[in-house]
Amino acid sequence: MVVGIVGLGLMGGSFGIAIRKYKIATEILGYDHNKMHQKDAIELNLVDKIVSLDELLKCDLIILSIPVDAIIKFLPSLTGCSSTTTIIDFGSTKELIVKNIPKILKTNFIPAHPMTGTEKFGPSAAIDGLYENKTMVLCDLDKCANLHKQRAIELFNKLKMNLVFMDSKEHDIHACYMSHLPHAISFALGNIVMNHENPQDIVSLAAGGFKDMSRVAKSSPDMWTDIFRQNRDNMLDAISLYEDQVSKIKQMIKDEDYGEIKKWMKNANSLHDIL
Amino acid sequence: MVVGIVGLGLMGGSFGIAIRKYKIATEILGYDHNKMHQKDAIELNLVDKIVSLDELLKCDLIILSIPVDAIIKFLPSLTGCSSTTTIIDFGSTKELIVKNIPKILKTNFIPAHPMTGTEKFGPSAAIDGLYENKTMVLCDLDKCANLHKQRAIELFNKLKMNLVFMDSKEHDIHACYMSHLPHAISFALGNIVMNHENPQDIVSLAAGGFKDMSRVAKSSPDMWTDIFRQNRDNMLDAISLYEDQVSKIKQMIKDEDYGEIKKWMKNANSLHDIL
Repeated sequence: MVVGIVGLGLMGGSFGIAIRKYKIATEILGYDHNKMHQKDAIELNLVDKIVSLDELLKCDLIILSIPVDAIIKFLPSLTGCSSTTTIIDFGSTKELIVKNIPKILKTNFIPAHPMTGTEKFGPSAAIDGLYENKTMVLCDLDKCANLHKQRAIELFNKLKMNLVFMDSKEHDIHACYMSHLPHAISFALGNIVMNHENPQDIVSLAAGGFKDMSRVAKSSPDMWTDIFRQNRDNMLDAISLYEDQVSKIKQMIKDEDYGEIKKWMKNANSLHDIL
Repeated sequence: MVVGIVGLGLMGGSFGIAIRKYKIATEILGYDHNKMHQKDAIELNLVDKIVSLDELLKCDLIILSIPVDAIIKFLPSLTGCSSTTTIIDFGSTKELIVKNIPKILKTNFIPAHPMTGTEKFGPSAAIDGLYENKTMVLCDLDKCANLHKQRAIELFNKLKMNLVFMDSKEHDIHACYMSHLPHAISFALGNIVMNHENPQDIVSLAAGGFKDMSRVAKSSPDMWTDIFRQNRDNMLDAISLYEDQVSKIKQMIKDEDYGEIKKWMKNANSLHDIL
């Protein structure tokens, strides 16, 4: 199977490493508009060679590991694919991407979201093991042809991923609470600390908790602005609910209602009986 | 030097491990009202023996590694110490503890805050290396006798800690932004996810970002309720400023002001040029 990877950053580059490790492809082709990323991806052996769009379209499997807005912009370029080419996007949002799949590609297309990543980006961020034992959400599989569905399932099983199936609309709600809202929260914390603490104190006083809480605030503003745009309605709902929680803890502290604070903390604790 | 550790949980237990490793004490004595913790601390070799209050008071150095409210309650029990006994508390808040130091102990007392920890608690949570290369904040050193000041500085230097000196009032403001507010944020996230996601989806969709952001929401409700109480005024200020940031990102998403969102994310990114 010839595999083409569009976007040779953290996700695409790590996917190249993974399929090489598990001997999934006869050839791994890379496609990226960034010349530096092309060069780095070859030097880092993430892909075998960089190809033109024409060559990309001849692949058996095409992975779209570019930011979510870029996926939508790129979709029309893929209409020249054969009906036997499987196209899988790795975007963090799904509903708007699904709405924008050209009609001719509907049965080729697998909307997917690997629940993995780091705050780093670019080919040099690519790492071995990014996908192993992680969850891959596959959406709207009833809409695509059996060949592609089976190929996708077999592929991610070979990469030792845990498969979860859901509707793209439902995906965007869950991804909002489990990933997009946490990113917004971390960016908000990053902003408040940048505005209210001086660099010297930040360096000396940052312990593990703060480092964990602010890590995802290192993430790419370009990529995350697109995600917030594509998941706008769910984000507005989730942030409103989050505001209620923040206002609740403020009010409980104001009212010195420490019994209720303890109960509220215990409810959050119970999250970790699950995880 | 005979060292007594009051509270044999994560912080006190790990301190026992550290001073044993660096051969700081001729004897490590433990004091804890919890019989199970006493037993576990001996079995885990965190301390050499469990002692009575009378024996504790005879130590050269007493470490108070108990929750912040418990420190205040325990202070009167220490008034029988000699003037050559150094007392160091490891509480996460400082101002109220300092206000409650009995007059007779003022010159013995070093208010300290090790900027380290994990979300776990109890003797079994004690680990090697918890203090090495971490920051120890020492407050109001001008108030204590030279003997104790020097002993504390020498001790934490031997443990390879980075020493930072500040006023207890100033400490509580910084600790609020760098630790207490992040904990409140994480508890709020834990609550919202527990209320709006089902356990099965949480398990399958939690990636690294979510796990990091919700890790400190595993922390002890008893301990953190005390900290929020003792740092109440700073917490109310910080939560209000945090609410402004959350409301700002909501408004920008609502207004589809993606240029401003990108700038706001970049400001948070810059935190990590420092850290």
